[in-house]
Amino acid sequence: MKIKIALCQTNVVDNKQKNIENATTMILKAAQQGADFIVLPEMFNCPYSNEKFIEYCEEETNSFTLSKIAKLANENNIYILAGSIPEKEDLKIFNTSYLFDKTGNIIAKHRKMHLFDIDVKGKIYFKESDTLSSGNKVTIAKTDFGKIGIGICYDIRFPELARIMAEQGAQILFYPGAFNMTTGPAHWELTFKSRALDNQVYCVGVAPALNKDANYHSYAHSIITNPWGEIITQLDEKENMKIVEIDLNEIKKIREELPLLKNKRNDLYKINLI
Amino acid sequence: MKIKIALCQTNVVDNKQKNIENATTMILKAAQQGADFIVLPEMFNCPYSNEKFIEYCEEETNSFTLSKIAKLANENNIYILAGSIPEKEDLKIFNTSYLFDKTGNIIAKHRKMHLFDIDVKGKIYFKESDTLSSGNKVTIAKTDFGKIGIGICYDIRFPELARIMAEQGAQILFYPGAFNMTTGPAHWELTFKSRALDNQVYCVGVAPALNKDANYHSYAHSIITNPWGEIITQLDEKENMKIVEIDLNEIKKIREELPLLKNKRNDLYKINLI
Repeated sequence: MKIKIALCQTNVVDNKQKNIENATTMILKAAQQGADFIVLPEMFNCPYSNEKFIEYCEEETNSFTLSKIAKLANENNIYILAGSIPEKEDLKIFNTSYLFDKTGNIIAKHRKMHLFDIDVKGKIYFKESDTLSSGNKVTIAKTDFGKIGIGICYDIRFPELARIMAEQGAQILFYPGAFNMTTGPAHWELTFKSRALDNQVYCVGVAPALNKDANYHSYAHSIITNPWGEIITQLDEKENMKIVEIDLNEIKKIREELPLLKNKRNDLYKINLI
Repeated sequence: MKIKIALCQTNVVDNKQKNIENATTMILKAAQQGADFIVLPEMFNCPYSNEKFIEYCEEETNSFTLSKIAKLANENNIYILAGSIPEKEDLKIFNTSYLFDKTGNIIAKHRKMHLFDIDVKGKIYFKESDTLSSGNKVTIAKTDFGKIGIGICYDIRFPELARIMAEQGAQILFYPGAFNMTTGPAHWELTFKSRALDNQVYCVGVAPALNKDANYHSYAHSIITNPWGEIITQLDEKENMKIVEIDLNEIKKIREELPLLKNKRNDLYKINLI
């Protein structure tokens, strides 16, 4: 089975309305060009900063952003993985990704499980946990294209999560993300390649474009890697939309040739969900 | 703490005596040049083929190869990780790595846990499981340089094993290996980089040189990767010995900057040994 995935690397600015308009334009373009499955970046409606998460957050039941995306999915008869938005529930804020089916219904939501706390001396300091709360669930969704897994950005750092999603049958792992200018050049490609190779799945990363006027500089470079661990497409740092067709039959072929999941010693070790 | 590791990328031929002489020459050279810890390739005394494993295998208690290496470790007051040899026990043959301390005592042994069965159409077919039996234990050794983990070749493909070794305190993961000319160019660097990065440890791979006269063509390219996921040294395909000093303090520094092991959700998932 083949699926046309649209990487929507939008430019995110300090204006929610503008961010949604930007995403809308790209979604419409991707739909017109025949995409099956549209992916937006992490925090596509909000600048990546703790104070903006507080200012921009929305409740799911009452979300301006989500209602717009639902309408676009329905009107264009297309899946949309809405990168992520700051989601408010009671007194907590989560970094949450919503998956809309072709009728505009939310069929999955993933709250970022691993909060990004980094302090590379003289290079990058960021503590999501100052503001955000973490999700506590692995997210798998059933689509017309089989099962998919959803993580957000830093979630990709943890091989256990990718393994759990692959073992639950996910064939494509989506990680909307926003690596920075330190970890991006060092680790973005490497982690997308290795999660895809180790689990013999496709991995898809969609990031905001690099906005030099923003406080947080996104590495961008939205990417798709295949089950052989190769990069099959990668954008640069600029705002851009690209549609790439992937063939899920490739997964079966590679798993037959190099049977990693079969050769895994399930009799000796097991990743358990607690 | 610093440690000078010697990568001994020997050329392996169809002559056990010659292979041991070859290894001996390289071990003596590395010892003279101040190495602390010598690493030999997977199957350093035997061509990589199922029929040769049967012909060359030795029992541990009565092993010509191991007695030679023990003597070299003792006489040169140096650690030697003896890549691997075909080890016979009763009716079984294992692919086994032995670690000798500075007095020549065996302080750890690892039997390859994951047997290499591959069938990439028109490129490479090999089924270790036709001849070999698999080990069933994770191997960690205590050395003067802290704890180290030992896997063999295909063992590196499985993120669970590396994670278990890192969680048990291993700071360097050694994988004597012999990737082939299909999987080597595609995956050798990627797996060594990703295991090192994900677990914030050093990873060391030592392979036989490429011997074009042999049936099995080793990709060679012996390698060390650091806890930031970078290659700090890599040989080409030719027979060669290289000593590289690594600094274990780097591990602590990187784990403070990017606290992957701390941010891991131990409350949600756990790799359990069965």
